[in-house]
Amino acid sequence: DARSMWLYRWYYSNLCQRTLSFTIFLILFLAFFETPSSLTRTADVRYRSLPWEPPCGLTEAVELLCLLVFAADVSVKGYLVGWSQFQKNLWLLAYLTVLAVSLVDWTVSLSLLCQEPLRMRRLLRPFFLLQNSSMMKKTLKCIRWSLPDMASVGLLLAIHLCLFTMLGMLLFTVGEKDAELNRERLTYFRSLPEALTSLLVLLTTANNPDVMIPAYSKNRAYAIFFIVFTLIGSLFLMNLLTAIIYNQFRGYLMKSLQTSLFRRRLGTRAAYEVLSSMQAGAAPETAGVRPHTLLQVLQKVQMSGSHKQAIMEKVRSYNDVLLSADEFQKLFDELDKSVIKEHPPRPQYQSPFLQTAQFLFSHRYFDYLGNGIALSNLVSICVFLVLDADVLPRNRDDFVLGILDCIFILYYVLELLLKVFALGPRGYLSYPSNVCDGLLTSILLVLEISTLAVYGFPHPHWKPETLGLLSLWDMTRLVNMLIVFRFLRIIPNMKPMAMVVSTILGLIQNLRAFGGILVVVYYVFAIVGISLFRGTIVAPFGNSSLAPANGSVSCGSFEQLEYWANNFDDFAAALVTLWNVMVVNNWQVILDAYARYVGPWSKVYFVLWWLVSSVIWVNLFLALLLENFLHRWDPQNHEQPSAGTPE
Amino acid sequence: DARSMWLYRWYYSNLCQRTLSFTIFLILFLAFFETPSSLTRTADVRYRSLPWEPPCGLTEAVELLCLLVFAADVSVKGYLVGWSQFQKNLWLLAYLTVLAVSLVDWTVSLSLLCQEPLRMRRLLRPFFLLQNSSMMKKTLKCIRWSLPDMASVGLLLAIHLCLFTMLGMLLFTVGEKDAELNRERLTYFRSLPEALTSLLVLLTTANNPDVMIPAYSKNRAYAIFFIVFTLIGSLFLMNLLTAIIYNQFRGYLMKSLQTSLFRRRLGTRAAYEVLSSMQAGAAPETAGVRPHTLLQVLQKVQMSGSHKQAIMEKVRSYNDVLLSADEFQKLFDELDKSVIKEHPPRPQYQSPFLQTAQFLFSHRYFDYLGNGIALSNLVSICVFLVLDADVLPRNRDDFVLGILDCIFILYYVLELLLKVFALGPRGYLSYPSNVCDGLLTSILLVLEISTLAVYGFPHPHWKPETLGLLSLWDMTRLVNMLIVFRFLRIIPNMKPMAMVVSTILGLIQNLRAFGGILVVVYYVFAIVGISLFRGTIVAPFGNSSLAPANGSVSCGSFEQLEYWANNFDDFAAALVTLWNVMVVNNWQVILDAYARYVGPWSKVYFVLWWLVSSVIWVNLFLALLLENFLHRWDPQNHEQPSAGTPE
Repeated sequence: DARSMWLYRWYYSNLCQRTLSFTIFLILFLAFFETPSSLTRTADVRYRSLPWEPPCGLTEAVELLCLLVFAADVSVKGYLVGWSQFQKNLWLLAYLTVLAVSLVDWTVSLSLLCQEPLRMRRLLRPFFLLQNSSMMKKTLKCIRWSLPDMASVGLLLAIHLCLFTMLGMLLFTVGEKDAELNRERLTYFRSLPEALTSLLVLLTTANNPDVMIPAYSKNRAYAIFFIVFTLIGSLFLMNLLTAIIYNQFRGYLMKSLQTSLFRRRLGTRAAYEVLSSMQAGAAPETAGVRPHTLLQVLQKVQMSGSHKQAIMEKVRSYNDVLLSADEFQKLFDELDKSVIKEHPPRPQYQSPFLQTAQFLFSHRYFDYLGNGIALSNLVSICVFLVLDADVLPRNRDDFVLGILDCIFILYYVLELLLKVFALGPRGYLSYPSNVCDGLLTSILLVLEISTLAVYGFPHPHWKPETLGLLSLWDMTRLVNMLIVFRFLRIIPNMKPMAMVVSTILGLIQNLRAFGGILVVVYYVFAIVGISLFRGTIVAPFGNSSLAPANGSVSCGSFEQLEYWANNFDDFAAALVTLWNVMVVNNWQVILDAYARYVGPWSKVYFVLWWLVSSVIWVNLFLALLLENFLHRWDPQNHEQPSAGTPE
Repeated sequence: DARSMWLYRWYYSNLCQRTLSFTIFLILFLAFFETPSSLTRTADVRYRSLPWEPPCGLTEAVELLCLLVFAADVSVKGYLVGWSQFQKNLWLLAYLTVLAVSLVDWTVSLSLLCQEPLRMRRLLRPFFLLQNSSMMKKTLKCIRWSLPDMASVGLLLAIHLCLFTMLGMLLFTVGEKDAELNRERLTYFRSLPEALTSLLVLLTTANNPDVMIPAYSKNRAYAIFFIVFTLIGSLFLMNLLTAIIYNQFRGYLMKSLQTSLFRRRLGTRAAYEVLSSMQAGAAPETAGVRPHTLLQVLQKVQMSGSHKQAIMEKVRSYNDVLLSADEFQKLFDELDKSVIKEHPPRPQYQSPFLQTAQFLFSHRYFDYLGNGIALSNLVSICVFLVLDADVLPRNRDDFVLGILDCIFILYYVLELLLKVFALGPRGYLSYPSNVCDGLLTSILLVLEISTLAVYGFPHPHWKPETLGLLSLWDMTRLVNMLIVFRFLRIIPNMKPMAMVVSTILGLIQNLRAFGGILVVVYYVFAIVGISLFRGTIVAPFGNSSLAPANGSVSCGSFEQLEYWANNFDDFAAALVTLWNVMVVNNWQVILDAYARYVGPWSKVYFVLWWLVSSVIWVNLFLALLLENFLHRWDPQNHEQPSAGTPE
């Protein structure tokens, strides 16, 4: 028992869990380097150089390492859970199966010298991410629960689509002798599958005015057909999907919060029972825990220092009275209270002049002054951007901008030094915003000094040519860009902004499960996409990038829009392509291009991806955001302060 | 007092309120006929004929009539409210002002013989709609409350936009000697306003893959810039706006329901007090209402027949006991119960054969058979659509389709007759679905008979030519289209579907206020748009429609996409243009075209419209839908049955 206890502790220690997370990250990250490797400068088929191919065995070795870590993980988990429980736990069984399949696939691929046509194990990799997070499993369960309702809306959507397709086909063949209407028919309603595609795309509003233009220029009344279709489909039914998903996720966050609170209560109560039973011999009717015992136990417990100290101080205040169960519980409420971070004391200066200076530079008006300077710096960059917009790079005069940059950076350095003087080095670093500022300032200083060293001090008509990789101009731009980031420190100083930003930051904490599911979905679809569509998009005219905007291709097609980079030839390109389809705009172009290059069945893949990503995931995200937002802004919940805001 | 009571009753009578609603509708509808009248076949500037212009004084006369009705309305309202209250009521004061301004404007326009350059009163018209609905006023108040929060998110959005614009401009001028990057700079980031527009449009995802293509084909890493921008802007901040609006509208519906319930309670209580005080003289300690008195009062009250009967029956069951306040209240709970509509008794037939037939044809399996037949009819139309897709109209053989249509219509007529036989004529009409079916069937029958009369019975190679307006082919199509609508009756037969449909129907009832606000917003923006942009889009090459897809215009421009119909030359066209901008897809084309034709300031109008319609209104709609849906599907609310569903 002691051994398994030790194993349990060791397994759930930070180091072990971090190793596991890193392994998962590593095995997922491998996809960027594996055979259709993403290590080219561009994904555009016209300009792409031959990618670097990893030698056979390199990525495989890393993969084997990861798989062995997973094997160790599953065996430890199995040992801890026990064999009889193991058989009942579907997730663990699936884990074992996936691991076995991956290993078999790995040996097969190595025995074929990495020339195998299909890699099953790549598809299975996201499973490792999925099974390691309990939140993700919960979210998946939630999604599964809402599937029946979503299916009924989906069915309604399908009926809506079919009815309007038929109506449209009937409508646009009535006046067939009409040139305009015939154009509508020939472009969007030629055959049943094409009409269906047109209206499906219209459901996402991606071809909105275009699809109605030929009929609408013929007669105003045809607009009604398209407007009614969009109204019902896009406004009613699509938003109904959002409502259904939100309905399922309402209270999801709340419930999981309550569950974790309940678990902790249960744990403290159990600890209380154990501790009180240990001294039950003395006086059975006066059950309770002696503070002294508790202090001894607390010494051994791992928890963050400040919380520990707070609890121990409270325990000491009870002297030697026996603690009742309620009092015991209350002790651990300290854990909920977020500790107000205390800043180290300011350095004490003797001279009254220095004290005045310290007061001055640690005052918040000094911060405001710094913000004002950053803002004016930003404005000056803006002004130069506008002034230089129409001037060719070689005619530009960088003199004033160079001088200004110098001055601003000097100010930032001064500010840094004064603040360090006023707050002391440790006090300065105890504010996260200062750390950020300091880092940016030192980078700026280094950049500026190196610029001055190479090019000398700015003078009128200061036009140094390119040296090495970057010209001076680029250097200045880089410096300016960093200043833009510095500007962000203004945001927390504005009240309503700070509220919204804290909501977003709070959301990000809760977002890991959703992000994980997104990663899983993207990964699976990207791998499937690569195996389906790799190499199907070929460069026009034998890779010649010299052909100008060619007039032979029709407007709005994949070729005219030069979407060549939207392919599935490697993992990174596939991710970007999937992103573009997820954002939905102009996805009909990609849909159409792949239908031409590969075959009409490719539409199934893209429609499926649209359903999974844009319909389900984006709605999921919206539901989570709503949930999080309402939970945070609800006045009833203000007694439970969110982490980070001092009470 | 009696006279004002009479006036009050008369004013809130159905007739008077309907007259008022009709007047509002009429004055709003006038916009279609007024000087830039919408009575042309198409809005396309290339093909548009000269519209019919109403003679000066025609629409003005109608308008004066409407304004006089409003004047009567405001005076009655003022009389009923009383002058001291009138002065305090801002809505009524505004009503009076608007009316006065409209009348002055009307006289000015008539004295100028309808040649006035600007018609103020058109802009003010939607106010009449607004002030007539208390729900709309409430909704407006709700929107006003959520404005501060929205402003803070809007500010964040603006900062986000500005930062990324500057970053983008700095980023895409770093490697300026680079051809591809330079293209990105020249196309989307040429100057500060253009970069801002590009990224604003990207915020709506309307130019999603296009804007990143030049940079992305240069280097993969540039995609990160655009993806991060879209993620933060479109996913986080835009959805945060939704959350804020939803937060404000949560409980909005609930509250208004509770308020109306509370008001009714108050009313009944007051009635009870009045009635009991009338007989207080008899026995002051046994306060109560004599059922007899109540019956007398009820006789005079206007309410729907079935409710009245139910209440009166209950009152009679009390005999002559005095009613206490609680009992009195309970009586009126009858109003909440939706009456189960009783279908008239079926006709009684003597012969057992007829009875069996009646049982058979009134059974629900007979309904299912009818649905099946309708479905098979739909499938047959589908099959013919697919078969005929590639055949030119003149080669088509309509023989089989004609025969099939005949058979199906015969079946529908038979079904109609049998149902009438089984349920009796009044019983048949008591089901709304039957009424719909019967109407469709009779129209189909008339169409079919007229077809047969004109063209004779179908035979092979049956190819009658066009007679009058419609050819036989078109006639058949028309018939088929009506059958498609008949198919809709299947939906209520499916359980989850019925649920979703009932949600949507329930939503529509609650939607009037939102629809009204949409009408107001559309109206105002359309009128402003007409006065700003009327006649600015002119047909290319002197109205020649003969010019083919001209190669001189660049792809993706207003001219190449032939968006000529998206103009502001009359009211109907303006509405469709605004709709297209509201749907957001490809709105950058319209934005760009108007910036070229009119001037860069036109962007302000479109961005404003985007903010009002797409950002605020669509989110409002989503909030309402969520609210409605959650309210209906919440198991706690099932004791409050929604109107229409029998308990």
